[in-house]
Amino acid sequence: MYKIIPVENGLDNVPGFCYDAVNVGMRKNSEDGDVAFIRSDVPCDVEARFTTNKFQAAPLKHYLRYPEGFKTNFLLINAKNANAMTGERGIADIDEIFGKLSQKIELLNPIMSSTGVIGYRLNQEKITSAFDMFDLNARNAEKTARAIMTTDSFKKERAFKVELENGESFHIAAICKGAGMINPAMATMLCFVTTDAAIPREDMKELLEEATEQSFNRISVDGDTSTNDTIMLLANQTNTAYDKEAFAEALNRITFELAMLIVRDGEGANKVVAFEVKGAATLDDAITASRALSNSLLVKTALFGEDPNWGRIASTIGASGVACDDSKLVIHYDDLLIYSDEFRELDKEREEKAYAVMKQERFTVTCELGMGDASYVSYGCDLSYEYVKINAEYRT
Amino acid sequence: MYKIIPVENGLDNVPGFCYDAVNVGMRKNSEDGDVAFIRSDVPCDVEARFTTNKFQAAPLKHYLRYPEGFKTNFLLINAKNANAMTGERGIADIDEIFGKLSQKIELLNPIMSSTGVIGYRLNQEKITSAFDMFDLNARNAEKTARAIMTTDSFKKERAFKVELENGESFHIAAICKGAGMINPAMATMLCFVTTDAAIPREDMKELLEEATEQSFNRISVDGDTSTNDTIMLLANQTNTAYDKEAFAEALNRITFELAMLIVRDGEGANKVVAFEVKGAATLDDAITASRALSNSLLVKTALFGEDPNWGRIASTIGASGVACDDSKLVIHYDDLLIYSDEFRELDKEREEKAYAVMKQERFTVTCELGMGDASYVSYGCDLSYEYVKINAEYRT
Repeated sequence: MYKIIPVENGLDNVPGFCYDAVNVGMRKNSEDGDVAFIRSDVPCDVEARFTTNKFQAAPLKHYLRYPEGFKTNFLLINAKNANAMTGERGIADIDEIFGKLSQKIELLNPIMSSTGVIGYRLNQEKITSAFDMFDLNARNAEKTARAIMTTDSFKKERAFKVELENGESFHIAAICKGAGMINPAMATMLCFVTTDAAIPREDMKELLEEATEQSFNRISVDGDTSTNDTIMLLANQTNTAYDKEAFAEALNRITFELAMLIVRDGEGANKVVAFEVKGAATLDDAITASRALSNSLLVKTALFGEDPNWGRIASTIGASGVACDDSKLVIHYDDLLIYSDEFRELDKEREEKAYAVMKQERFTVTCELGMGDASYVSYGCDLSYEYVKINAEYRT
Repeated sequence: MYKIIPVENGLDNVPGFCYDAVNVGMRKNSEDGDVAFIRSDVPCDVEARFTTNKFQAAPLKHYLRYPEGFKTNFLLINAKNANAMTGERGIADIDEIFGKLSQKIELLNPIMSSTGVIGYRLNQEKITSAFDMFDLNARNAEKTARAIMTTDSFKKERAFKVELENGESFHIAAICKGAGMINPAMATMLCFVTTDAAIPREDMKELLEEATEQSFNRISVDGDTSTNDTIMLLANQTNTAYDKEAFAEALNRITFELAMLIVRDGEGANKVVAFEVKGAATLDDAITASRALSNSLLVKTALFGEDPNWGRIASTIGASGVACDDSKLVIHYDDLLIYSDEFRELDKEREEKAYAVMKQERFTVTCELGMGDASYVSYGCDLSYEYVKINAEYRT
């Protein structure tokens, strides 16, 4: 059997990649960078999954112009400006930026990734000024992880060493950003995964899709889906080690843990709650009901108030339009029975227990619909004053 | 032609109905009542539209047990307890309450309507204690309108006198409550309309459906739909006057104006915004995009911050999944062009104008998709700290 071992210092564990970040003045009054890069010594395989928003940002459109199965050696990332809703001009800006960079280094199918405010052209002058400041051979994981943050309150990274039965081992590492505008399919987030594993091209697509489905596609902070969401897997194949099952598990763990960090860092959020719907008539119903719960303002404010008000849970399921019946519904908070047809009003002791469950930083709300066999779980957070403050003031 | 004349004192304008409210101790520390009634001197026709929430509350199920086209002479209303998710017991409670009331007056198919917290049995003792306190012949419009409030910050009523061309006239009046948990199809609201017009039974159904569609089904405070939403039309036919077109217009105006009052009174809300989507490929797309805008947390917090951040409008449309194309989209705030493919970044002067539009208590965001001919408008409000406070603390 294989072993998956958490390791420190994120991206630094994967050989063959360099990365750095600098501040070119787009992020004001900060020691953090606003332009970063990830460079591969050798042309590397890349696979990405993007937002379901119909208005894909310019960097996504730029990426999608490359032919299927292309290799790249350079990824440029900027914060503070999403380069979204910028039309053909936004794509041309990316080409012009890479035109300037190609005077300094040899570029193979360079990729850009952007996050920030929608609707403004990139400032080419500022972004290209980074090229004189970058140390192209640096391995500055911490600075790179911090440079991609927007309203994030902490940097997000994870890395594993995977030891295979035959004694070989490979590494997988990721940095990620995301705090607001997070919704199933898919969070407003950027996530860049690097690996030296000898992963076949076709496995990259399959495993990235699976990993995304069980992580970033299941989280919600505010029900909005951005124009820029991206998860990207960069594989430089510098290692001979690979095992599909081990790689899948390591990738799933990385993406799931990063997704939980995003919800935990949901703007102003204090807790992460799993909304598990069981016994739905269909998988669609299970997904609909679970996502309705993680997106409901009334549920989210009740979580913030730590009020075990199951009526809002029930009402949200009923309003979601899925097949259900109040005589069959059963609700638990963790293991505590909260509602069933025979059991409605909490006595003092159970109400105390319910309050205790809700005070936790993580807990599970389970709703059994009793209509069939389908189930789904999604993850949400509470809605606090702080969320309103951050989002009323963002941009100004 | 007919004339529709606004009149004061709401329900008092329609002869043949009595109404009153008393406080039986469910609403604490308040001079407002918590149990109210509307009684008709003669058996009157009734038509109702209810919530689309699958978990309809007990009073709705109780109503729906009566045969199609029934007449009634008594409507009992209580605040503070929704009698929802209370199972068969909740329905039996209503029958038992009316059993006691029938010892005092002759009841014909009595109806109950409830609003408040979900999941608790009605306190029969408290509610029936109202029967000794009611003045069954009172016409106390103000007190009745106040008794049905929950988180409402003001009472909501409207009345019209309708003068027909032939010199005859009739009256229509309504009281309404609703402030939170408001979502298209349909708001968490109770609305009771009375009229003395000689309206045929079949028109009641058709016109109430139309009126609901263009009013309560188009408003959103927080995207949640309650278990108790009810709009009810009571027609005692004591007048010979009727004109279908005039009645329809009067009913539409009453329900639209009350719906706007609900949004304006959205928990903690400061402004009412119309989200008009034009040029959609299908009506479904227009409805989906418009409702996505009125429900988006990012749009609602931008409204609160009075930030003319059109990127959030565009992103929300893109995320809603409707057919759209960023090169065809055009966005206006009132008459001010904010975004088109040729026009993206606001100059200082237009940005000033955009801020001025957003400072208004009412304005319109118009999005032309350029994909077809379908259009729809829905109405939403901003999301403030106050909303979070009210909903984190409600019930405790």
